[in-house]
Amino acid sequence: MNDTDRKPTRMVDVGEKDITFRRAVASGSIRVGRTVRKAIDAGKIPKGNVLEVARVAGIMAAKQTAALLPLCHPLPIEAVSLHLETDDETVRVHAEVRTHARTGVEMEALVAVSVACLTVYDLCKSLPEGQSAVIETIRLKEKSGGAGGHFVFPGSSGKGDGPCDSRS
Amino acid sequence: MNDTDRKPTRMVDVGEKDITFRRAVASGSIRVGRTVRKAIDAGKIPKGNVLEVARVAGIMAAKQTAALLPLCHPLPIEAVSLHLETDDETVRVHAEVRTHARTGVEMEALVAVSVACLTVYDLCKSLPEGQSAVIETIRLKEKSGGAGGHFVFPGSSGKGDGPCDSRS
Amino acid sequence: MNDTDRKPTRMVDVGEKDITFRRAVASGSIRVGRTVRKAIDAGKIPKGNVLEVARVAGIMAAKQTAALLPLCHPLPIEAVSLHLETDDETVRVHAEVRTHARTGVEMEALVAVSVACLTVYDLCKSLPEGQSAVIETIRLKEKSGGAGGHFVFPGSSGKGDGPCDSRS
Amino acid sequence: MNDTDRKPTRMVDVGEKDITFRRAVASGSIRVGRTVRKAIDAGKIPKGNVLEVARVAGIMAAKQTAALLPLCHPLPIEAVSLHLETDDETVRVHAEVRTHARTGVEMEALVAVSVACLTVYDLCKSLPEGQSAVIETIRLKEKSGGAGGHFVFPGSSGKGDGPCDSRS
Amino acid sequence: MNDTDRKPTRMVDVGEKDITFRRAVASGSIRVGRTVRKAIDAGKIPKGNVLEVARVAGIMAAKQTAALLPLCHPLPIEAVSLHLETDDETVRVHAEVRTHARTGVEMEALVAVSVACLTVYDLCKSLPEGQSAVIETIRLKEKSGGAGGHFVFPGSSGKGDGPCDSRS
Amino acid sequence: MNDTDRKPTRMVDVGEKDITFRRAVASGSIRVGRTVRKAIDAGKIPKGNVLEVARVAGIMAAKQTAALLPLCHPLPIEAVSLHLETDDETVRVHAEVRTHARTGVEMEALVAVSVACLTVYDLCKSLPEGQSAVIETIRLKEKSGGAGGHFVFPGSSGKGDGPCDSRS
Repeated sequence: MNDTDRKPTRMVDVGEKDITFRRAVASGSIRVGRTVRKAIDAGKIPKGNVLEVARVAGIMAAKQTAALLPLCHPLPIEAVSLHLETDDETVRVHAEVRTHARTGVEMEALVAVSVACLTVYDLCKSLPEGQSAVIETIRLKEKSGGAGGHFVFPGSSGKGDGPCDSRS
Repeated sequence: MNDTDRKPTRMVDVGEKDITFRRAVASGSIRVGRTVRKAIDAGKIPKGNVLEVARVAGIMAAKQTAALLPLCHPLPIEAVSLHLETDDETVRVHAEVRTHARTGVEMEALVAVSVACLTVYDLCKSLPEGQSAVIETIRLKEKSGGAGGHFVFPGSSGKGDGPCDSRS
Repeated sequence: MNDTDRKPTRMVDVGEKDITFRRAVASGSIRVGRTVRKAIDAGKIPKGNVLEVARVAGIMAAKQTAALLPLCHPLPIEAVSLHLETDDETVRVHAEVRTHARTGVEMEALVAVSVACLTVYDLCKSLPEGQSAVIETIRLKEKSGGAGGHFVFPGSSGKGDGPCDSRS
Repeated sequence: MNDTDRKPTRMVDVGEKDITFRRAVASGSIRVGRTVRKAIDAGKIPKGNVLEVARVAGIMAAKQTAALLPLCHPLPIEAVSLHLETDDETVRVHAEVRTHARTGVEMEALVAVSVACLTVYDLCKSLPEGQSAVIETIRLKEKSGGAGGHFVFPGSSGKGDGPCDSRS
Repeated sequence: MNDTDRKPTRMVDVGEKDITFRRAVASGSIRVGRTVRKAIDAGKIPKGNVLEVARVAGIMAAKQTAALLPLCHPLPIEAVSLHLETDDETVRVHAEVRTHARTGVEMEALVAVSVACLTVYDLCKSLPEGQSAVIETIRLKEKSGGAGGHFVFPGSSGKGDGPCDSRS
Repeated sequence: MNDTDRKPTRMVDVGEKDITFRRAVASGSIRVGRTVRKAIDAGKIPKGNVLEVARVAGIMAAKQTAALLPLCHPLPIEAVSLHLETDDETVRVHAEVRTHARTGVEMEALVAVSVACLTVYDLCKSLPEGQSAVIETIRLKEKSGGAGGHFVFPGSSGKGDGPCDSRS
């Protein structure tokens, strides 16, 4: 008896693909409620400097993507930037990752956003309503490079309008 | 000049808290679209066995929570279970984590759900519309143990109705 | 007094070697006994989906090779596949790893096989005779690339007859 | 459509088990051939101090067991010792792990032995016949603690005759 | 031939020691020069928020101590705080770690200080004189708990005067 | 309200830099006192083979540099060597790292030295005066490659006189 009854789980071979410039932008947000958002803006979160800690955690997590996601390829990473901003009840997160590799960095960008949001949750969960925070709408905004070419999330402008461009 | 102008970022001291039973349930979903959802149900995702790989990735990630989130305490973990099911355009994920410790396992459950969703994205992103998948609504459903007592996400039934209970 | 009395342990310099295509196939097996093997075939191992979990663990471990083995070089990995099959009293494992690098991927393939076998042991050890399972005969089957050229384990056919080829 | 058609893969709940003393002894060997074995004895392996590097790698790997094996529980580890000796064509490895926990340390001992053998392979593979080395017969020799009580691999003496006892 | 000619490297058995309160304070500094120190104070280091990033890196590294140092025991960690301040040409770092365990947390505190200093170096090395920065005088200031009792670095006051006490 | 009030912490983009040969040499020392130093020379440190364990730990840590230091780029590493020698009251450590990459390996060399020193401390801390050991003067000795060209720590000879050259 053997295990060939379905297409096997594997890390697909990217060795035939060219090493090209790869860029991906991902976004997400965490709805923390107005009380917590105001506390973030005022620098009054007891555990620490929420936005900066979330940024560092997101950058470090991007580097751990291949260790976290079973079928992801380990890639060199040449740049990671995260942008965080508060708005009404929400912390909005954008991440941009760039490198030259045989495959794209979409997962690195998505992991960076996810871990940044989880870090915000962790630092704020002891505040009133903190545990009710909701991480929402994590998605790939834009991607370029490789045979698949340029992708822009439907509804976006797609002119390189990544949230990180005007700030880094 | 020194760095005492704000409350410093630190891993807060939980040494005075009692070691008690801790349980947390988190949920989330990834909207993959009907085409991809049908492919998952039919076992026709080229990269592999999506739900099982996502489950394994989620369980392993729960154990990496303290390595990923800067201010999280390393905890022994006594149980992790993930439940995944498809529905219309979506894969729904629930994770339950249990242990005896001085602090709760909410972050472990949230990390498990997040990484499971990211893994589904990774395995499906090469399909039509795959890159447009959106990870939605990751939140803590329920939590018990410790001085904070029992938490149930507003609107839930709160009678231990964790999605894992009837299946494990 | 100094520590020069033996050739020092070090990560040897591969900087002068060319970046070429590298491929390695390794194999191994775990003798679980007929009772356990039948339970695996019937999908009745309480802990879970043994072969799939072992496959995922093996792929993830291949990526951790440089972190586990002190003198191994960190390499980009372009492909990993594991094949598992049951036979009489045994689960047989083969792993294939491919990349372009200055040095070979033999250790990545051997680590993948080893961790897959250890995972099978872990999931089956609570069954009757489970603790008596024995991991046997882990070896490099085949290797190509680099100045060392093509290696085939003595006694094998050596025509690219890696167990993964006809299935991926 | 959902994923309840088989018993789900999960980290089983050990929270009801008592924290007791746990001990496990595992063994394995790597057949390197007489040429390599003599080089090891003479301290003439170019890459470095084979047995010591293998020992350190095995100890460090024991601590990574829960990170490597998907369903393993993270445990505190109170003691790890590895014994390595050469014999004719072989390097024999034994590992002993001890702790107080809700579950046993069999996997920690098996991982230590496996990684020690893989490290010997890595340091010796560039020697004549080095690539033909075979890792053989990795198994649990003995285990005590917990509800499962005392286990001794069939055929062993079972009186605490772990290979590490007389040497640490 | 075997490897018993010296006392073997091993993780020593702490299973007989009591679980008690453990606390350690370590300190160190990095001499960056006056130009760089002024840039840190003014928030003008191009790479980012030096002191905060160093603090986060130190806290995260404390949790990786057992993964970095071969013979260190994995411990639960209940609290980590880092204090950084600039002075003339130097950034001074203090770390305090606390837990209940069978062995002390001196290495966790020393690792936190070391990695914080390395992070400061990394963020400042591209400035004038940045590469000439020197990490100096990393040491254990104070330690309590366990059979070894209270240790104070010779010349210190030893009354719980850890640099973190008045600030956390 | 947003987080644009300072230059954001990020992993700077090295994608425009050429892949060139990179080399870095770092040094440091740990003052252990004459009693401990003599014990090291005599091979009488109870925990194990101090210099060899420190060497292995340093090599392994170099590979973890990007995982430890938030803004460091993950790089392939082609060579790592550590040299340790005792002198009077001190253990002196030098590390050399080499690769071809878009950015330098200074941090890898500094991390290797730091972790080697921490490992010496860990193995010696239980001896008389062991806890009073001080890690001193960790610095970059020399660096070459990239647009920044050749750097030599002020006061050094700068002719490729890295401590590892004559021994590897």
